[in-house]
Order: sequence, then structure tokens, then C-alpha cells
Amino acid sequence: MKTYRKELLLKLPTRRALKNITTEVEQAVAASGIQEGLVLVNAMHITASVFINANESGLHVDWENWLEKLAPEKPSSQYLHNNYDDNAEAHLKRTIMGREVVVAITDGKLDLGQWEQIFYYEFDGMREKRVLIKIIGM
Amino acid sequence: MKTYRKELLLKLPTRRALKNITTEVEQAVAASGIQEGLVLVNAMHITASVFINANESGLHVDWENWLEKLAPEKPSSQYLHNNYDDNAEAHLKRTIMGREVVVAITDGKLDLGQWEQIFYYEFDGMREKRVLIKIIGM
Amino acid sequence: MKTYRKELLLKLPTRRALKNITTEVEQAVAASGIQEGLVLVNAMHITASVFINANESGLHVDWENWLEKLAPEKPSSQYLHNNYDDNAEAHLKRTIMGREVVVAITDGKLDLGQWEQIFYYEFDGMREKRVLIKIIGM
Repeated sequence: MKTYRKELLLKLPTRRALKNITTEVEQAVAASGIQEGLVLVNAMHITASVFINANESGLHVDWENWLEKLAPEKPSSQYLHNNYDDNAEAHLKRTIMGREVVVAITDGKLDLGQWEQIFYYEFDGMREKRVLIKIIGM
Repeated sequence: MKTYRKELLLKLPTRRALKNITTEVEQAVAASGIQEGLVLVNAMHITASVFINANESGLHVDWENWLEKLAPEKPSSQYLHNNYDDNAEAHLKRTIMGREVVVAITDGKLDLGQWEQIFYYEFDGMREKRVLIKIIGM
Repeated sequence: MKTYRKELLLKLPTRRALKNITTEVEQAVAASGIQEGLVLVNAMHITASVFINANESGLHVDWENWLEKLAPEKPSSQYLHNNYDDNAEAHLKRTIMGREVVVAITDGKLDLGQWEQIFYYEFDGMREKRVLIKIIGM
């Protein structure tokens, strides 16, 4: 059994932004030398998500509009957390999109469906954030 | 350490439908011979979910109604993705229900609570879809 | 390769309540002796969640208010499941918050970001519930 660990550092230029990190995860799998196993990819911050879906720009705008309806940024006063910080809605949006994905590794590669891509979704950006990649297998 | 991989092929007859796949996952665990470990079960498509909840038909209708409120199918024009395809709301519904589950294997069996059942939720059906079962353990 | 299994028993005094279980999971990781691997932590009941976010009391109230907007408890008659039981909205709230988390173990410890804490969220309490901790690694 082997394990491998890598952190990605991300600093996105806007409060909210999506970044495709599939290539970075593929590179970590290749570097691990693991042929069969599982890879966990998780945001290490609680106002960001890692999730899997399609790389289609219209859909990315649809998410933005939809999340803003489900957990609006304003008025800020509707959230108790905002007496303490200013990002309650970022925590709620991240809850919808999830913290982590677990992906199979088969024959040394990410075992993804045809349209599956791994994304990082930032909800409180303009600061450095970390994503953890942890692989176990053989 | 051992690993095992299996794909389920599903073609559901309606745009949206739920299917209990607990038995199929149990059979994969038995076939793997793995006694202690983890099983990942994920949709390989981005308009479908794998999730765990109760096998109660009323609740299944409640999900349908609730998801339709949170991410309505119509009007289709509210979604940018629908300039490209016709299923933006299927991507959003799948986001709520999730892509994957990870379940423990103990003594060669799925280590589920009394009422936990594994479901596939199709949001854009009438075509062939795949579910991945990947098991690692010993 | 080694595996470890532990159940937590929880009986929360109200219908809905949050409990920080990070210490209990850390203790299980220490007891396992596993230095590198993954830990799965999942509710074994379908009206409860395990999730990761911040330990800030204002935010916890924000979740309560937000979930009640997305999946209101009342009127109970809006849910078909409530012909059978009285907790349809508890199943829906759990769907939003998720069933499980998978966390990396590195150097014998939970590999969490600075503010990440593991919570149990009860949506149908005043009865005994179980949380499963399953660890695999080496």
C-alpha cells in the first residue's frame, strides 16, 4: 500500500470564481505512482468547494445565479455570522456545492466519466486558499 | 491490499427516476472478496446522482417535488446552459443530491445503518448511463 | 494495510441540534494506530448529517434558519412521506447537509485545514443515533 499527499495553492482574483483543477489532480495521480486506489480532493477552507461536473461556461453562470438565489449575499444583516465575519452566505453556498470528491484510480489514471471534470469553487476569494489531494492505493 | 472495479449500466425510461442499487453494490462487494475497506459508488454522468436514504415511496415523491421547487425544469430559458443543451436543471438537481457515496465494508458486507439504502437518481434519462463501483481494502 | 471501526452513540435532547465530533474522530484515529490513510465518518441514520465547517455559533443559527427556509418543517401535510412518518423535512435537510465526510490522515493525525471541524447535525432527535467511523490505511 502507498499513499501520496499534495496541496494546491489557489488565490482567485474575485470573491467568487470557478477553476478547473482536473489537470492538477491528474498530475498528482501520475506523481504518486499509484495504479489502483482512491483519491480524495477537498477544500481545506470552509468557504470553498471541490465538486465534479461539466466544463461548460453557460452552466457555470447558471450555478452562480442559482446559488445566489438559494443563499443570497445581500442583505448581509440577514445572517448572524456576519456580526463576526462577512461571509455567512459563502459558507451556505459551499454547503450546497460540497467540500470534497472521492475519485477512483484505475490503471494509474483518474477513473472519470466522459464529461466529469473536477472544479474548485471559491466563495470568498482574493486570499490564498489550499486544496488537499490525498491518494491511497497500490 | 486488493481493489475491485465494476460498472453498472442503467437506462431509465423517464427523464427523472429513482432506482435502488443496494443489491448491485452488495453483489460487487461479495464478488471482490474484500472483507475490510471502503467502497466508492459514483455516477459517471453529471446529470445523475448516487445517494443514500430511505426506501419509502412517499419520500421519493417528496424529493421530486422539492427538487423541482429548488431547480425548476421550466421555463428552460432561465438557464444559459440551455443555449447549448436542454438540461441545466438536471445538473442543478444532481448538485443537491450529490455525485457519490463512500460506504464502509466490514466483515465482507456493506456497513450500513438499518434504513440506509443506496439509490441512483436519474435527472436526464432515456439514455444509457454508467455507475462506477470501486472497492479498496483487504 | 490496517483498518479500524468505531461507532459513536448520540442522543440529542431536541429535534434539531449540532454537535462537534472532531475530538471523537481524532481519538479514533489515534486508537487505530494508522499513520497514513483515509477516515470515513457517516451518519448511520437517514435524518442526520456529518459535515465539515466552522465552529461559530452565529453560523450554526444561520444554518438552522436557512434549512428551515429550503425545507420547512410545517405544514407537515405538504409531504407525502408524512402519511407514513412525521419527518420528511428531516430527510430533505439531511440531503442538503450530506451524509458523510472523508478526511485524510497524515502523520497519524486528521489532515484538516485551520478552521475545519467535523459536526454531527441531528434533524430528528430525542432518540439514540449512531455515527460510523471507518479508517483504512497503514
